Amino acid sequence: MILLVSPKDVNEAIETIKGGADIVDVKNPPEGSLGANFPWIIKEIREITPKNLFVSAAIGDVPYKPGTVALAALGAAMSGADYIKVGLYGTKSYNEAVDLMEKVVKAVKGVDENKIVVAAGYADAHRVGAVEPLIVPKIARDAGCDVAMLDTAVKDGKTLFDHLNEKILAEFVEETHSYGLKCALAGSIKKEEIPILKDINCDIVGVRGAACTKGDRNNGTIKSELVKELSKLCK
Amino acid sequence: MILLVSPKDVNEAIETIKGGADIVDVKNPPEGSLGANFPWIIKEIREITPKNLFVSAAIGDVPYKPGTVALAALGAAMSGADYIKVGLYGTKSYNEAVDLMEKVVKAVKGVDENKIVVAAGYADAHRVGAVEPLIVPKIARDAGCDVAMLDTAVKDGKTLFDHLNEKILAEFVEETHSYGLKCALAGSIKKEEIPILKDINCDIVGVRGAACTKGDRNNGTIKSELVKELSKLCK
Amino acid sequence: MILLVSPKDVNEAIETIKGGADIVDVKNPPEGSLGANFPWIIKEIREITPKNLFVSAAIGDVPYKPGTVALAALGAAMSGADYIKVGLYGTKSYNEAVDLMEKVVKAVKGVDENKIVVAAGYADAHRVGAVEPLIVPKIARDAGCDVAMLDTAVKDGKTLFDHLNEKILAEFVEETHSYGLKCALAGSIKKEEIPILKDINCDIVGVRGAACTKGDRNNGTIKSELVKELSKLCK
Amino acid sequence: MILLVSPKDVNEAIETIKGGADIVDVKNPPEGSLGANFPWIIKEIREITPKNLFVSAAIGDVPYKPGTVALAALGAAMSGADYIKVGLYGTKSYNEAVDLMEKVVKAVKGVDENKIVVAAGYADAHRVGAVEPLIVPKIARDAGCDVAMLDTAVKDGKTLFDHLNEKILAEFVEETHSYGLKCALAGSIKKEEIPILKDINCDIVGVRGAACTKGDRNNGTIKSELVKELSKLCK
Amino acid sequence: MILLVSPKDVNEAIETIKGGADIVDVKNPPEGSLGANFPWIIKEIREITPKNLFVSAAIGDVPYKPGTVALAALGAAMSGADYIKVGLYGTKSYNEAVDLMEKVVKAVKGVDENKIVVAAGYADAHRVGAVEPLIVPKIARDAGCDVAMLDTAVKDGKTLFDHLNEKILAEFVEETHSYGLKCALAGSIKKEEIPILKDINCDIVGVRGAACTKGDRNNGTIKSELVKELSKLCK
Amino acid sequence: MILLVSPKDVNEAIETIKGGADIVDVKNPPEGSLGANFPWIIKEIREITPKNLFVSAAIGDVPYKPGTVALAALGAAMSGADYIKVGLYGTKSYNEAVDLMEKVVKAVKGVDENKIVVAAGYADAHRVGAVEPLIVPKIARDAGCDVAMLDTAVKDGKTLFDHLNEKILAEFVEETHSYGLKCALAGSIKKEEIPILKDINCDIVGVRGAACTKGDRNNGTIKSELVKELSKLCK
Repeated sequence: MILLVSPKDVNEAIETIKGGADIVDVKNPPEGSLGANFPWIIKEIREITPKNLFVSAAIGDVPYKPGTVALAALGAAMSGADYIKVGLYGTKSYNEAVDLMEKVVKAVKGVDENKIVVAAGYADAHRVGAVEPLIVPKIARDAGCDVAMLDTAVKDGKTLFDHLNEKILAEFVEETHSYGLKCALAGSIKKEEIPILKDINCDIVGVRGAACTKGDRNNGTIKSELVKELSKLCK
Repeated sequence: MILLVSPKDVNEAIETIKGGADIVDVKNPPEGSLGANFPWIIKEIREITPKNLFVSAAIGDVPYKPGTVALAALGAAMSGADYIKVGLYGTKSYNEAVDLMEKVVKAVKGVDENKIVVAAGYADAHRVGAVEPLIVPKIARDAGCDVAMLDTAVKDGKTLFDHLNEKILAEFVEETHSYGLKCALAGSIKKEEIPILKDINCDIVGVRGAACTKGDRNNGTIKSELVKELSKLCK
Repeated sequence: MILLVSPKDVNEAIETIKGGADIVDVKNPPEGSLGANFPWIIKEIREITPKNLFVSAAIGDVPYKPGTVALAALGAAMSGADYIKVGLYGTKSYNEAVDLMEKVVKAVKGVDENKIVVAAGYADAHRVGAVEPLIVPKIARDAGCDVAMLDTAVKDGKTLFDHLNEKILAEFVEETHSYGLKCALAGSIKKEEIPILKDINCDIVGVRGAACTKGDRNNGTIKSELVKELSKLCK
Repeated sequence: MILLVSPKDVNEAIETIKGGADIVDVKNPPEGSLGANFPWIIKEIREITPKNLFVSAAIGDVPYKPGTVALAALGAAMSGADYIKVGLYGTKSYNEAVDLMEKVVKAVKGVDENKIVVAAGYADAHRVGAVEPLIVPKIARDAGCDVAMLDTAVKDGKTLFDHLNEKILAEFVEETHSYGLKCALAGSIKKEEIPILKDINCDIVGVRGAACTKGDRNNGTIKSELVKELSKLCK
Repeated sequence: MILLVSPKDVNEAIETIKGGADIVDVKNPPEGSLGANFPWIIKEIREITPKNLFVSAAIGDVPYKPGTVALAALGAAMSGADYIKVGLYGTKSYNEAVDLMEKVVKAVKGVDENKIVVAAGYADAHRVGAVEPLIVPKIARDAGCDVAMLDTAVKDGKTLFDHLNEKILAEFVEETHSYGLKCALAGSIKKEEIPILKDINCDIVGVRGAACTKGDRNNGTIKSELVKELSKLCK
Repeated sequence: MILLVSPKDVNEAIETIKGGADIVDVKNPPEGSLGANFPWIIKEIREITPKNLFVSAAIGDVPYKPGTVALAALGAAMSGADYIKVGLYGTKSYNEAVDLMEKVVKAVKGVDENKIVVAAGYADAHRVGAVEPLIVPKIARDAGCDVAMLDTAVKDGKTLFDHLNEKILAEFVEETHSYGLKCALAGSIKKEEIPILKDINCDIVGVRGAACTKGDRNNGTIKSELVKELSKLCK
C-alpha cells in the first residue's frame, strides 16, 4: 500500500517528502474536501518534489459541468500534477458521473497518456446529494479512469469507517481490482486504521490529520517523523 | 466596434470567419449561457481560425470556486484561446467576484501576458442569484481584467435591453472606459440594436441568433452573408 | 421469467388473472410510483385471485421511517399480500436503506416466513433524491430480503432503459443472482423490451402500460389477450 | 382525567404500570415526536400490560400518504394496540387530514370496532408545516375518530402552553366535547400544569418527562412513585 | 347580504357604483390576491365614490411584519379607505396572526374608531404556507377586528368552494357571528353560488369575475348591468 | 457629518437628544435590521424630540411589494417621521428597487415635499439575497430619493467595513454626491471608525452600539455622554 499525504503549504510538503510519502497531494481545503489549489501552487509543489515521487492535485468538489471540469483537469495536468483527482460532488447519478469523467480522461490523456485520473466519491455522499460512493468503481471503469477513490465530504470528525463498514469497504476494493483498477481510500483515517486498509488490499491510503502533530488536521502541522511512521505501517 | 460571433460547430466557425467576424467565440450552450467547451474543441477552432483573428473561450457559468476556475482558465489558455471569458454565476458579491477573477488573471497572465481576461456578468443576474451586473466594471478593474462584459443568463427570448435600459447601459460602457478597460455586450442582441450599441461606444458586440438564418439561435445556422451584414453595421 | 401485472381495479385484476399473469400487483398510483393501496383493497384482490397465483402489494414510496414502514409492511402481510414491495424513496444511503429493510423483513417474516420481501429502488433515483439503484442488490442481501427490484420514480414516459443501459442492467441481474436472490425489473417496459429482459436473466418483469389497450397506462385498460401475449413472451 | 405515560422500554413500562397509569403509550422518539415503534415492541408491551389497562401506539409523524398510513394503522392494531395515534405531520389542510384519517378509521375499525383512533395535531405545527392544531377537533369529527389530541412536534423545551394559551386550550376541549369526542393533551406537560388541564376538562393527559427522575425525558427514567403522584393529581 | 366589487380602474369603479355595489374594493392584483394599491389610487377612488358607499382597500398579502403592516394600514386609512383588508399570508399560526392584527387594529382605530378592520384568510392557505383559514374567526375575535374574511390565494380557476365545502363554510359564518363579527366570503365566486352564500348567512360577498363580461376577471371588464344583477341576488 | 442614533425606547431617546444627536432614529430590531416600529411609537418619539432635530423612521426590511410599502411609507410620514428609510431587502435588481422607491417617493412627497426619502441597501446583501449595495446611489438617483444609505442586514458582529473596504466606500460616497444626493453609512460602526467615515466625506453616520454602555447594542443602553463623544467626533 502506498501513502498519499496532503500538506497545506511548502513547508509541510518538504516534511511530507522527507517522511517518505509516495504521493504529495495538493488540495485547497477552504474550497471543499477535494478543493482545487491554484496552478502556481501545483507547479511549485511539483518543482520541489523529487522526480521519483508523484504529485496529485484535486481539481475540486466539482459541479456537473463536464466542459469546465475538463478544462480544469487539463490545467492541473499542465501545471505538473501526475494524479488528477476529481471529486464527484455535483454529479447525481451513474450516467452523469461517467459523462463527466470521460471528458476529464480525454482532456488529460490527450496531453499525456501517463497521467493518472482518479474518480473520487464521498463516503457520506448522501449528506451532500453527491453520487453514491459504492458505484465509483463502475464509474471509474466505464469512463476509463485509473483509480477509484473514496474520501469524506464533510469534515466533522466522522471518518470513512463511520459511513461505510469494513466489509463493504473490502468489497469496494475487490470490485475495483476486478476491473483492473487501483483503489485509494481516505477520510480522516487514523494511524490505527491503516493496518485494516492494508488487510483489505487497498492500494493507496490518503491522510492528513494522522500525519499532523496531535493528529489534528486543522491546528497541527505535518512532521516528517509522523509521516515516516505511517509510511512504515503501509509497507 | 468589433464583432464576436458564437458558432456551434466547425462549419459555423468557417462561415463566421468568411463573414468577417473579429472574434470566433467557443462555448457550449447545453452547459449554460457561458458554458465551457472541451479543450479539444477550443484547439480545433483555434487551428482553423486565421492568425489575425481572435478565438475566445467561455469557461463556464462558474461556481465560486477560485481554484477550480483558475485551473479551467489555464486549461482554456493552453488550448489556444486568446480571450478567456468567465461567467460570474456562483459569485454573489463584489468581494467574491474580485477574489475569483484575481485568481483567473494570475493563472492566465502567468502563462501569457497577452491573453485577454473577460469578466462577464449577467444582465438578468437576479433571476439566478448571480452578482449584480452593474458592478462588473469595478470587479474587472479591481481584479486586473481586460474586459467587462454583459450577457443574459436565461435564454428565454428576453434580450439585454429587456433587463437594462439604454441609459444604464451607456453608463456601464462609460464607467468601464473610465477604468481603461474595454466593454463587451451580448444577450440575444438583434441586428437593429447594433447601432444603439455603437452609439453608446461599446467596444465588442457578441451575437449568435442575429447571425443565424431566421434569426433563430437554436434552429437556424450561421451564414457568412449574415455575419458580413452585421460586421458592416459594426464599422 | 415470470410476469407481474398491476391492475387498477377488480375488473382489471380479473383480466390479469385470465391472461395468465403470475403475480397480481396491488398499488395505488395517485400515492406514488410504488404507492400503497388500502388494506381492504389488498384483501379483496387476494380473495378473487386463485390460490396458486401470487398477490404483491406495494407499501409506498416510503420515507426513512423504519417504525412506520415496518407497521405498514405487517399491515399489508395481514391483508393477504404474498409479496411486500417497499419503494426506497426517502432512504438516501446504503446504511439507511439496510436499516429500514431489516425492520420490514423482521416484521413480515415474524408473522409468516414464506412471505416474500422486495427491496425496490428507482432507476431515476437521482431525480428524487432516493438511494442509488445500482446498490439495491447489496441492500437486499444485507437486510435479508428475497428480491431486488428496479422501477422508475417519475412516470413521464421515460423507461427503465432510458435511465440504465442494458449492460448495466445485466450486471444488476448477475450481481443479484450471485447473492442467491431473485431480480425484478419494471418501469414502463414495452412489449419489445421483454425479450431483452429475458436475455439478461431477469426473474420477474413488471408491467402495466404494455398490458393495456393502446399501450397506455393511464387511458387504456388491461385486457386478458394482451396479458396472454406478454405472458407468452416471458416463457 | 386519565393518565397516559410513554415509557421507552420494558423496564419503564413496568414502572408505568406499577405507578397506576391508565394508558401505556408505545412510541419511538428517534423517529419523531409521534414516531412509530416496531410491531414486536408493541406486542411485547401489550403482553406485559394487564388486560384492564390500555396500550396506545403512535404510528408516526406521518406523511400525507393515506395508503401507507392505513396499512401502518392496521399493523399497529394487529400488534395489540388499543389506541392508534396518528401524528398529522405531512397533511397540510383540513381536506388532506380528513382524507387520511378516514382511511385510518376504516382500516382499524374494519378489524375491531372497539379500537380507538386518535387524531393528533401539533401545537407548534407552524414550525414544521403541519396542519393547524386548532382544527383537529373538526378533523377528528369529520373523519370518524374517537379522540382529538395535541402534542408538540419539536422537543426543544417549549411546552404545549408556550404555543397555545389556556383560554384557547379550554376552547379546544370544549369544542371536542361538543362533537361527542374525547380530548387528549400532551407536550412536555409539567406536574404543576396537570391541575390546569383537569380544570379545563381534558380527558387524557400524556406525559413522559414529568414521570421521569429529575423531570428529564432524555436522561431521567420513569419511576413508579412519580407516576403514582401524577396519577393522584389526575383524579 | 351586501356586495363588494373589485374594479381595476376608475372606469370600472364608475360601473361598479352605477351597478349598485355596496362596497367599492381597491386592490392591486399584480401584487397578489390581496395586493395593495397605491395611496393616490385609493384616494382617487374614494373621491369618486358617493359618501353613502364604502371603499375598501387591501393592504397586501402581507408578511409577518407587524410594524410595516401597521404603518401600511394607517396609510390606507389616511388615504380614505373605510374597510382595511389584511391578507394573512406570511403569518403561519394563530399567535402570529393575532399579534399582527392587533397592531393593525390599534393603528387604524387610533385615527378613526369607525374604520372597519378585516382579517382575511385564504381558503387555499396550505398551497402557500399561510395560516389555516378555519381559525380566522378566532383570530379576528382575539385581535379586535370587525370582519372575518376568506378569499383564495392562487387564482388558477379554483374557487372558494373547491377548497372548503358548504358545510364547513356554514360553520365558518356561524362561528364568526357567534363572536359578534361580520363575515365576508370571496374567491372566484360565480353568480350561481351567491344564493348559497346568502343561505348560509354570509354578510358580505366579494366578486370580480362574476361582474365582468364573459365572467372573465382578466380579459373581461366590469359592467353596471352585471353588477346590478348580482346586487339583486344579494338582496 | 451629522449623527443619527437609534434608541430602543423613550428613555434612550431622551439620552440621544441630550447627547446632541442630529437625528433620532426609530426602528424595531425584532422585525429586522431596518424593522419598522408602530405608528404610535413614531408619533411619541416625534413629540418628545425638539423641533430643530429630525426623526427618522425605518419602514422595514421590505419585500418587493410597492403598494404595501408605499402605504407604509405614507403611514410613517403621517406619524411624524422626517426621514423615511426603506430597507431594500426583497428587491433583487436595479429595476425592482427603482420601481419600489419611485412609489415610496410619490407617496411621501405627495403629502409633504420636505420629507426626506432614504434608499437603504445592505453591505452584506449577498447573505440575504437583497439588491447589490454598490448600486444604491443609482437606485436613489433614478427613483428620486434624497439619500443613499448602507447598513448591514445580519447583526452578527460583522461591521460595514468587514463587507466593503474603505476604498469602495469612498467611491460610494463620491458617486452619491455626484448625483446631488446625501450619503448615510451605518452597520455596527465603532467609535474609532467615525473619523474614517468623516474622511471619506460621508454626510450622515448611523450608530447604536457605539452609543451604548460597553459598546453593546443588545445589553448596553444609550447614555448621553457617549452620544456627546460621538457627536464631537462627527464635527
